[in-house]
Order: sequence, then C-alpha cells, then structure tokens
Amino acid sequence: MIFSEDKINEYMDLAIAEAKKAESRREVPIGCIIVDNQTGEVIARGSNEREETQNAIKHAEIIAIEAACKRIGSWRLEHTSLFVTLEPCPMCAGAIINSRIEEVIYGAKDPKAGSVGSINNLLAETRYNHQPEVLSGVKDQEAADLLRNFFREIRRKK
Amino acid sequence: MIFSEDKINEYMDLAIAEAKKAESRREVPIGCIIVDNQTGEVIARGSNEREETQNAIKHAEIIAIEAACKRIGSWRLEHTSLFVTLEPCPMCAGAIINSRIEEVIYGAKDPKAGSVGSINNLLAETRYNHQPEVLSGVKDQEAADLLRNFFREIRRKK
Repeated sequence: MIFSEDKINEYMDLAIAEAKKAESRREVPIGCIIVDNQTGEVIARGSNEREETQNAIKHAEIIAIEAACKRIGSWRLEHTSLFVTLEPCPMCAGAIINSRIEEVIYGAKDPKAGSVGSINNLLAETRYNHQPEVLSGVKDQEAADLLRNFFREIRRKK
Repeated sequence: MIFSEDKINEYMDLAIAEAKKAESRREVPIGCIIVDNQTGEVIARGSNEREETQNAIKHAEIIAIEAACKRIGSWRLEHTSLFVTLEPCPMCAGAIINSRIEEVIYGAKDPKAGSVGSINNLLAETRYNHQPEVLSGVKDQEAADLLRNFFREIRRKK
C-alpha cells in the first residue's frame, strides 16, 4: 500500500462522510473518494445517487471515477487510489480496471454483489489488462453499521 | 429470445451503424442500441466516446443505458433488450446486471476483456441478483471486421 495505516484510516473517514451525505438524501449510504498517490490530495468524491437520478450507473465509485477523469483530463487514473465504504459490484470493479486505478481500499464486504472477493474477484483476474492492489476491511464495522441502520429504518417506516 | 431472427439482425445493423459513428470520430468502433421489448421501439443509442471525452466510463453500452434510464425515467430497464457489436467488458456486464436488462445480444467475442463468455461469464452468475438471456455471434464478422480495419489503419499511420 502506498499510504500509511493512519492515512488510510483518514481517507476512509472521508469516504464514510460521503456515505453519510447519500444517507441524508435517502440513498443507500455508500461513499467513495479518489486520492492522487503522488500529492495525497483528494481529487474526487462520490456518493450513491441511484434513486434520485433514477440512473442505474450512478454508484458512488462511478461518480468519483468520472469526476477524477474530468479533473485529471484523462481516462487513465494510473497514479490514484480509490477508497470506498462497500466492496465494489461488478460494474464498479470493471470501471476500476478500465480506469487503471492503482490501489483500491474498501470497507465492508458485500455478499450480494461484491466482486472484489465475495462473489468474484475481478481485480485479481490476470487475464484483464490491469490488476490494482486491494486492501479490504478498513473501518468495515462503521461502513456496515451505516448500511444496517439505513435498512432497519426503512423497514421500521413500512 | 423475444425478437425473431430477422428482427435481431435488423437491430444489430443499427448497433453497427452506431459503431461506424464512433469510427468516424476516430473512436474504437463499438456501438449499442436498447430496444423496448413490448413496442419494439429503439429507446436509446450509444457509441464509444472514451477518447474524445477522456472518460473511462464512456463505453457504448454505458451511454445507451444512461440514455434509456433517462428516457424511461427509471433505473430499472426490465423490459428491454441491449444489442452491442462487441462482447461487454466487466464494467458493462455489471451495468447490464444493475439495470436488470432482460436480453443481451452481442456480435464479436472480445478475448481481451469480454466478460460474457470469454474471460468470465458474469451474466450467467446466479449469485448476482439478475441473469439476462444472452445471444452471441450475431453479425460477428461484420463487427470484428470494423475493429480489425480500424486498428490496421492506426498501425498504418504510425
């Protein structure tokens, strides 16, 4: 990993802050940030917008990747790290491969769609043309609690 | 399959027309359309825009899926079919799962990134919450020739 454990925890706190923004808009609380590995600067943020936009693509990671491409002016995000509160789905894992992100750090596992260790491990598949480094389980309890409380609240209101 | 063989060939011709549009903008020629399964109407089109937008997400399928969500006003594209000239990559296969597209018809195989039969078969994975019907090899020679000629031309100019 490029960043120290302290730095990784700090960055994951920022991804969790994005997840809380999604929650405040009644979206499933998942958040993401992308960091420039050379400067340490946060260059993009994203939080889940699927319901408000009614757009199947608008996961936190996709929003952050698009913002990072715009910021850098290139589809290649080679010297960046992506921090996300939940294990990426196949779409987002594929977007990470396509944008050549160097490192991926995620929080909680997703048994229903997770494709970076749970159902599949797309980021370890050497037949794709890019394999990022992966670290999982960072602040996973906090990320999982956010999701659990969100769905409990939805069931309570029904 | 919902549509007849003749209809499928007609729709694939429209996807190939989209691929040619990409080629005319010097993008890798890949094209996609999405059809309403109930009316047969083409509700969205997309052609690869990765280079001109410098956005890693802008594959033909993603552009078409976003346009279809906008058109229908929902992230659920349950009663639609997606026609694409090349086998979807993991990102696009994931987007197809996420948007609940009913049927996927594609042309040529992609040994480098194809995730609907080549490197992976994400659309057949029953642990994801949706499995579309898939038909491959429709007008595959035409789709593959477009790509081959495009890359031959690039090498010639170097």
